[in-house]
Amino acid sequence: MITVSYRFPAGADAAKLAKVIAIGQTVGSWGAEFSHRAQAMAAHTAQVLDIQPQADGSHIARIGFPRINTENDIASLLTMIFGKFSLAGPARVMAIELPDDYGTGAKFGIEGIRAKLEVHDRPLIMAIFKPALGLSAQDHADLLSQVAPEGLDLIKDDEINFDLRTAPTLDRVKACHRVLEELRQKQGRDLLYAVNISGRADQIVDTARRLQDAGANALLLNVLCFGYSVLEALAAHPDVEVPIFAHPALSGAIGGATDGSSDYGIDYSVLLGTLMAYGGADAVLVPAHYGSLPFAAQSEFRIRDILRNPPAGRRKVLPVPSAGVTPGITRRALADYGNDVALNAGSAIFDHPLGAAAGVRAFFQALDAVKHQRPLNAAVDHPRELKTALEKWGGD
Amino acid sequence: MITVSYRFPAGADAAKLAKVIAIGQTVGSWGAEFSHRAQAMAAHTAQVLDIQPQADGSHIARIGFPRINTENDIASLLTMIFGKFSLAGPARVMAIELPDDYGTGAKFGIEGIRAKLEVHDRPLIMAIFKPALGLSAQDHADLLSQVAPEGLDLIKDDEINFDLRTAPTLDRVKACHRVLEELRQKQGRDLLYAVNISGRADQIVDTARRLQDAGANALLLNVLCFGYSVLEALAAHPDVEVPIFAHPALSGAIGGATDGSSDYGIDYSVLLGTLMAYGGADAVLVPAHYGSLPFAAQSEFRIRDILRNPPAGRRKVLPVPSAGVTPGITRRALADYGNDVALNAGSAIFDHPLGAAAGVRAFFQALDAVKHQRPLNAAVDHPRELKTALEKWGGD
Repeated sequence: MITVSYRFPAGADAAKLAKVIAIGQTVGSWGAEFSHRAQAMAAHTAQVLDIQPQADGSHIARIGFPRINTENDIASLLTMIFGKFSLAGPARVMAIELPDDYGTGAKFGIEGIRAKLEVHDRPLIMAIFKPALGLSAQDHADLLSQVAPEGLDLIKDDEINFDLRTAPTLDRVKACHRVLEELRQKQGRDLLYAVNISGRADQIVDTARRLQDAGANALLLNVLCFGYSVLEALAAHPDVEVPIFAHPALSGAIGGATDGSSDYGIDYSVLLGTLMAYGGADAVLVPAHYGSLPFAAQSEFRIRDILRNPPAGRRKVLPVPSAGVTPGITRRALADYGNDVALNAGSAIFDHPLGAAAGVRAFFQALDAVKHQRPLNAAVDHPRELKTALEKWGGD
Repeated sequence: MITVSYRFPAGADAAKLAKVIAIGQTVGSWGAEFSHRAQAMAAHTAQVLDIQPQADGSHIARIGFPRINTENDIASLLTMIFGKFSLAGPARVMAIELPDDYGTGAKFGIEGIRAKLEVHDRPLIMAIFKPALGLSAQDHADLLSQVAPEGLDLIKDDEINFDLRTAPTLDRVKACHRVLEELRQKQGRDLLYAVNISGRADQIVDTARRLQDAGANALLLNVLCFGYSVLEALAAHPDVEVPIFAHPALSGAIGGATDGSSDYGIDYSVLLGTLMAYGGADAVLVPAHYGSLPFAAQSEFRIRDILRNPPAGRRKVLPVPSAGVTPGITRRALADYGNDVALNAGSAIFDHPLGAAAGVRAFFQALDAVKHQRPLNAAVDHPRELKTALEKWGGD
């Protein structure tokens, strides 16, 4: 069974609406002429499991849907649970509980990404190429060669950097691949570059193959902009042999108010947690409540817990708190996430006053400071890269 | 240039936010080390065109984005204009103006659909198979054989009817194809059955080919659930040789309040108008304000106007007002739409007290009554099918 929790705002007739969903989103009405199909109809009909009043006057109704109404994917799931009903007035999907083997699990997840990096005992450090647009492919390689030797684990394109004339995706991969090969020779380790995959949905696996052939060792996908079905296509296909980093771009258009209070849409824990995990993402970028976006800590933690607590037999998905992440938030991030996290920074690395290499070093210095319980305060005597970062962006 | 209108609610610093979008959603910040790339950066940067205060205290800012930041598709467009910024607080995308040749135009549109049906001078009548789930493929064929001889133009699956064991999609197509062949032999005309296409994104064109080979002459797609990129894949591929009917399922999760007043998300005119038209849909189902969903007439009309006023060289897209459509709304629908519309009914056809054939006849009788300026009132002396429908569902 697929169990979905809907929130109806105060004043709505929750019992009636729950029934409308259970019937209207499955079999609908039928006449006496189909009485001989009653058994089949019943097998496809959803059931209202319970309705709980909330302190604010809203109600949360749980509805159980037959799995046989879906194709074991996200698109048919979304159509069933919220397709037409999303247009019926205020209602918000708060949670989806799926059967353990529903959808597509991560091919790599935290474990697989760590295995590729051979880093098992600390948080991962990730950079975002900045500026986002206007650099050549070789500029990207030059930036990469500044940060790669400093121990950086991961780097990604800005999500708006597509297959554009100034730096075609394949050229970025090729140029950066040379830097990564050099890193492997010199340091005997890999760094994953999540290149922004894009283009036609029907050709997405071919595109992934082409990028892999050119050396791509990770992919970034704007899942909400392309559709979960494109994530699933990449995740399910055996030829895609690199981890997929899911970007939350556009999730705010469905999630609404960043404190999760919207009466419409789908909760962020579902969009960036459940649907990503069951859609096959290996890592998910999540707006960090320490950062520049006004995201609720509670939403972030629910996503974290969903990603890292997969059903039996599935891999844990890596949470990547992002947007405005600087070394100064490291203590709080580690308190919240422990080791199984990637700290992902654009400006804090590439706009570091002492240069991008110093930007990476500042993060490792922050990890070290936290380990030795030294406060992340600019007044404390830290190595100069970290001190400079704390002076510029603050910390605690 | 791509021009996007954003609405910021009263109290927001519209000038500041508009600037954040223009810079933050394109190049972002860059340091002196990239001064030699200033020209490239400038070419990728968006510009705030104007900011207009609205009567309710909100502001509408128009921002012009360089087309070169996109891949000429919907996914890169959405990432650029609202990707990260959708998470930055209340802001709603109200309108998108695209270059005339942006994206993918309809292969068929109104003209192509009419050519297939050889119906040029009246609104089209469309049915939705009911009940939605639990019928066998042969049940679908039996239902079709009840309504096809009555002059019905179009029929579609319920959007939640997927490739399920009770009636696999290919079986539905095959069973219904036999009925449509018979119709062609007896009446010398075609009826289009928009079968619900689903499955993996990377295989979607193969799936379309298989359905076409079995006789499918139209497709239905839950565009928001699969992603606009799946619509574009179908629309752009030369092997897809049948019209695509776009379903609005899930659009409420992004559109929010059905009067368009939400502070978040993307306006319905963009979701069901602009993005469908530039994504290659031939017909779009739109919630009818006469019907069972609380949709605003103004939203419906804006969608209608966008769909039917394509740029030069592109085909008009067919609007299909849907959900709770009965013969009783025909006068109002024709006043609003004229001839270039399909009236789409599920219950009003398949739950007609005198049977589904009578349900279709009632719609044609309603068209005739409107033509002869007879009020759609149950008290008026109408043919019994129409009279029965008006008694059951009302009219004016």
